[in-house]
Amino acid sequence: MSDLEALQKNVRRLQSRAGNAKMALHDLAEDLPVNWTEIKAVAEKTFDAFAELHAAKTELAAWERSQ
Amino acid sequence: MSDLEALQKNVRRLQSRAGNAKMALHDLAEDLPVNWTEIKAVAEKTFDAFAELHAAKTELAAWERSQ
Repeated sequence: MSDLEALQKNVRRLQSRAGNAKMALHDLAEDLPVNWTEIKAVAEKTFDAFAELHAAKTELAAWERSQ
Repeated sequence: MSDLEALQKNVRRLQSRAGNAKMALHDLAEDLPVNWTEIKAVAEKTFDAFAELHAAKTELAAWERSQ
């Protein structure tokens, strides 16, 4: 697998994970006050997923600029 | 205002605040990845609102049991 392919694959993987985390946070918010004690844990997971996706996209963009 | 009325008023006030916080978290989750950097701050505010509401309800229940 080329560098580009590896970076693209990583972005797709993290995009899928961020999509799932978004849904989890959305469902939690919709069902509140049920599971209100879980808010911080679910939000942290969602934040981490989007932060990693952001980093992977930045890395891919930097790679493309460098070519 | 009696103790009971004050406790009930506090619960209503915090219930309204928790409702607003729930909507804010729900809207944030719906609009992701827009404002993904705000996830933790919005979630913390929502958590605090539900924690305070929970405490106020517990206090009211304890007062009612003591009568």
